[in-house]
Amino acid sequence: MQKASVLFSGGKDSSLAAILLEPFYEIELVTCNFGVVESFQGAQESAAQLGFKHRVLACDVQILEHALDMAMNDGFVNNAINYIHKEVLTTLSKESSISIVADGIRRDDRVPMLTPAKVQSIEAKYGVAYIRPLFGYGRSAVNSLVDQYLVCEENESTKSSSSDYEVELRALMRARSTDDAVAAIFPEKHIQSHIFTRKRHE
Amino acid sequence: MQKASVLFSGGKDSSLAAILLEPFYEIELVTCNFGVVESFQGAQESAAQLGFKHRVLACDVQILEHALDMAMNDGFVNNAINYIHKEVLTTLSKESSISIVADGIRRDDRVPMLTPAKVQSIEAKYGVAYIRPLFGYGRSAVNSLVDQYLVCEENESTKSSSSDYEVELRALMRARSTDDAVAAIFPEKHIQSHIFTRKRHE
Repeated sequence: MQKASVLFSGGKDSSLAAILLEPFYEIELVTCNFGVVESFQGAQESAAQLGFKHRVLACDVQILEHALDMAMNDGFVNNAINYIHKEVLTTLSKESSISIVADGIRRDDRVPMLTPAKVQSIEAKYGVAYIRPLFGYGRSAVNSLVDQYLVCEENESTKSSSSDYEVELRALMRARSTDDAVAAIFPEKHIQSHIFTRKRHE
Repeated sequence: MQKASVLFSGGKDSSLAAILLEPFYEIELVTCNFGVVESFQGAQESAAQLGFKHRVLACDVQILEHALDMAMNDGFVNNAINYIHKEVLTTLSKESSISIVADGIRRDDRVPMLTPAKVQSIEAKYGVAYIRPLFGYGRSAVNSLVDQYLVCEENESTKSSSSDYEVELRALMRARSTDDAVAAIFPEKHIQSHIFTRKRHE
């Protein structure tokens, strides 16, 4: 079996992506961290619950700083999140032992989303295959699979369980700006506070 | 497990699509036929080799006739093939017992390919989920999986093994037009003459 390295936030989409690949690839879950907040802990715990190997990918904090500049200029995070995702995917793809990278992006996602040209550029430049297992699935198909294969649990062991890019981006902005400015760009609804485990089937 | 009905030509893409869905859905392979040529025989045989349930979906010959008009007007088959695929997907989605339809379309395919608007329209109109298991896979990832899971064999039992839309479209045109006109629109390279079976893993 080939190894597939799946970018993993601990959320339902990246969990399901790993489960869909599991029968066909040796799975390694990878959560990026920029050294601002240890926001990988929730993902680490989810990965353990799901029974997958997991590691933290140290990414250059300059990526996060540039993304923050983008978000503050734009007044919203979409472009910044797209930029972070592309750079994290690139950081992972550059590793010499990596030949397959994957993530939990769905057909109907707007952010993060790479253009076809960026996808082909990463594949060609770094000699990897970039797989999006959920890219051919719409919302209802994803939700049905989540219901069948995952159980959502409240996470009590870590204060914030989300390993989404927003966590560190928000933390970096908080260190540099006012609470009102932070709240304007990062609505609180983006925060997750749960982890996923597997539903056991007979 | 939910049932997924996978449009199946007998080719490597739709075979692989079924294999990727198999751990998560009860698979039924479906090959369309317009009553012009019994071109489903190759797909039927491939399905048996792969160990999947299979049935033939009788589709209205008017779809094929309209597609032929399109191809003859255009001078090439791309739009006609897209039209046929959309109509076949619609015919399947209209069946009352169907809730999940799927096919073997890949990320880099040009034909057949439905626009996002058509995908959402079919899902909304007929209450189905349309899944494209290979839509998040590029060429190299698909080829690796095919190498690992499928064996390509020459098909000796039927003269033409392909159940692609082109077979019946070409046959319909042959009945109405000259050989030269047929050859101009349907280059022979589109013909397949093999079936796929599973590679056995230890």
